[in-house]
Amino acid sequence: MLTQQLARFVCETKALPGEVQAAAKVALMDTLGCALAGVTEPAARLAREHVAEMGARPVASVWGANFSTAPAEAAFANAIATHVLDFDDTLSTLRGHASASTLPVALAVGEQMGASGKQVLLAYAIGIEVAGKLGRIFGDSHYLKGWHNTATVGIFAATAVAAHLRGDSEQVLRNAWGIAAAECGGILRNFGTMSKSFQSGHAARSAILAEDMARRGFTANEAIFDGNDSFQRLYGAEEKNAGQYVQRLGSPWDLVQPGMNYKRWPCCYCSHRGLGGLLELIAAHQIKPDEIEAVRIGFPPGADEPLVYNDPQTGLEGKFSAQYPVAALVIDGRLNLQSFTDKAVQRPAARAMMKKVERYRVADTAVYSGTVGYTDIAVKTPRGEFSMRVDKGPGSRSWPIPEREHQEKFLSCAVCAMSAGKADHLLAMIISVDNLPDIRELMTATALKG
Amino acid sequence: MLTQQLARFVCETKALPGEVQAAAKVALMDTLGCALAGVTEPAARLAREHVAEMGARPVASVWGANFSTAPAEAAFANAIATHVLDFDDTLSTLRGHASASTLPVALAVGEQMGASGKQVLLAYAIGIEVAGKLGRIFGDSHYLKGWHNTATVGIFAATAVAAHLRGDSEQVLRNAWGIAAAECGGILRNFGTMSKSFQSGHAARSAILAEDMARRGFTANEAIFDGNDSFQRLYGAEEKNAGQYVQRLGSPWDLVQPGMNYKRWPCCYCSHRGLGGLLELIAAHQIKPDEIEAVRIGFPPGADEPLVYNDPQTGLEGKFSAQYPVAALVIDGRLNLQSFTDKAVQRPAARAMMKKVERYRVADTAVYSGTVGYTDIAVKTPRGEFSMRVDKGPGSRSWPIPEREHQEKFLSCAVCAMSAGKADHLLAMIISVDNLPDIRELMTATALKG
Repeated sequence: MLTQQLARFVCETKALPGEVQAAAKVALMDTLGCALAGVTEPAARLAREHVAEMGARPVASVWGANFSTAPAEAAFANAIATHVLDFDDTLSTLRGHASASTLPVALAVGEQMGASGKQVLLAYAIGIEVAGKLGRIFGDSHYLKGWHNTATVGIFAATAVAAHLRGDSEQVLRNAWGIAAAECGGILRNFGTMSKSFQSGHAARSAILAEDMARRGFTANEAIFDGNDSFQRLYGAEEKNAGQYVQRLGSPWDLVQPGMNYKRWPCCYCSHRGLGGLLELIAAHQIKPDEIEAVRIGFPPGADEPLVYNDPQTGLEGKFSAQYPVAALVIDGRLNLQSFTDKAVQRPAARAMMKKVERYRVADTAVYSGTVGYTDIAVKTPRGEFSMRVDKGPGSRSWPIPEREHQEKFLSCAVCAMSAGKADHLLAMIISVDNLPDIRELMTATALKG
Repeated sequence: MLTQQLARFVCETKALPGEVQAAAKVALMDTLGCALAGVTEPAARLAREHVAEMGARPVASVWGANFSTAPAEAAFANAIATHVLDFDDTLSTLRGHASASTLPVALAVGEQMGASGKQVLLAYAIGIEVAGKLGRIFGDSHYLKGWHNTATVGIFAATAVAAHLRGDSEQVLRNAWGIAAAECGGILRNFGTMSKSFQSGHAARSAILAEDMARRGFTANEAIFDGNDSFQRLYGAEEKNAGQYVQRLGSPWDLVQPGMNYKRWPCCYCSHRGLGGLLELIAAHQIKPDEIEAVRIGFPPGADEPLVYNDPQTGLEGKFSAQYPVAALVIDGRLNLQSFTDKAVQRPAARAMMKKVERYRVADTAVYSGTVGYTDIAVKTPRGEFSMRVDKGPGSRSWPIPEREHQEKFLSCAVCAMSAGKADHLLAMIISVDNLPDIRELMTATALKG
């Protein structure tokens, strides 16, 4: 009984090992930062307008705004803000963005409950654990058929977060998962539109609704992950050895092993390996932009699927390009939110440098995902060609972002929504969030405007 | 461009042929009645409690209650009330309940807009047209794989209803359908639980959310029904000749041909043919309950799939039984809401009569759905065996419910939620709804308690 075993883990886990709690705190910082940068995007603004018009009882804070709403509605708007820039973390075992739907739910429901910082971290880590284990169970075929794991797996993870925070029984959670299955959508077809982030927002809201209805006594199928007509089979999974993954719940925790991939740059994670290698080559060989004759970037099969724009025209297209981030990094020596405006992508210097970037396919018999694989990168200069194979992901556990840089990422994001002083204050609160008696203090600081 | 052609029909249709408007009015009466009987069910009560706690700005009426809420939330609660008794209409081309999600949306958005009765009927009829045509396009395989058409097709139909009432452009509707696709769930696995009606409620709410976001300028894939990775292919449809169905939009309207199947009795539609035949045999041969030695009821393949309880113990199980409705009809001479309480199913007289009911499989090479097919029925008495093959569905266009009886169905349902006097008043308002200048008058009367 897969459903029952998962539910038991969610309901019975009472504390986190120290390293898991520490990892959850890093994820909280990174995710909140991405969300605060995201609040200024049109998709996030439109979601806030919808939520504001609904005018629900003020219970949970809407980030980057000065109002509160129902927990499900706050989680909806906040999750869209979290994911809209595609700057938020990914998890290879989920094959998607792990915090996008789960953390907004942990914080909105935590705020409603007046939970402590430690309780929120615990519920969030449990959600990530469900996401990672279910992600493995759903396997590659679910994603490859056209489902958006961030939303379709994410809704079950987020439902677990809400159920844990509310202290639900196993039976309530099993019903909540049945209800979540009834709400479940999220399709790759919507990538490249605002609805990519809508899908994480919908998953977050639907998760809270599912838990709320189940807690009231609303019934659904109580074994949604079991049997020949299980949810995951209907949704295209070719289930293999599901049981083995359930045995590994919490041993080790997905938050620690494989651990999150944090984005160093606000573009598709598939481009991160090449960009990390390029930075290393530039530093090691003191390469100047004007001596670059060509940059060659090679991907094995599957590793660059989302990089569909070879000639990007907009900032959003630039995020899903193999060529533009390379060009911008070479010219500017760095990549940040300002690198991905329409204007930045269209500047002549970037377009000239993009012409020197050659993308090719590395022959390999294996097929990789965006978060697993390697990238070959080479820079040709009059002094010779410098090259390397990059088999680690920048921002992953094996190539971590230094703590100081990670905090700088947070601050550079947070100032999109608030003053530098308030961003500093919020960062300090996050660093000691495990000692925070009531998460409402943090949520209020997050929602502040100006 | 299937998506575009459908959107054009929804946006450009400005009036209904007289017979379609008349058919829409009958559907309105039948559906509202079912909803008012449904409001007392636990599933509907729990949904109202959730919506009440959310406390959104009062815009649209919640049926059987004394408060209003956001249109999406009202549609959610009202659609659950509509579908919870499984007394609401079905449409063979949809292979599901056609009004369950569409009518609550037409009325909630109509109330928000202050639309006239005629405008609400028009938007609703357009929704049924989308449901019937998309239902054909999705075909049998979508349902047979495990999707709940009432919700999965219903969400697109309901989105069309909202978009028509709001006067949206084709482009807004195409984006709204892309957003609706991102929200779309509803699985057969949840049948037999409260989540069957939850799925129609979720479709109704999600439809309004999708339209609302698209109207604000939120983007999604604008051709969701087109291409190799269309929505319907991802959701298991084996699409055949989709184009031909689009050519038939409004010619004829599904509301008229094939027309709705209205339930004469509050149990699965699959049992209706046999029950209709049984009533005819009893009347023609003056059969008394105590002279019945046996009742034989035969179904061809597929025609009785949902009738899974051969020995039902509860009212809900009795609805999905081949034997119990036959027994109750023989004993009581009628079937109504009171026939499907736990107590009624458990009474000794019913259990004794059920023992005399024999269900069998009719050899047939074709496979039928619950709304298409036939039933063989035979009653054995000391005077001989009387039998017939019933190839029409009671409550369908070919065997319509007399107007007087249909009004009686409405009144017997409505008194579950209101006094007989108020039910009479509401019926009179429905009968002249095409002349009602503002649907808010009807909605207020519908929501009244006591």
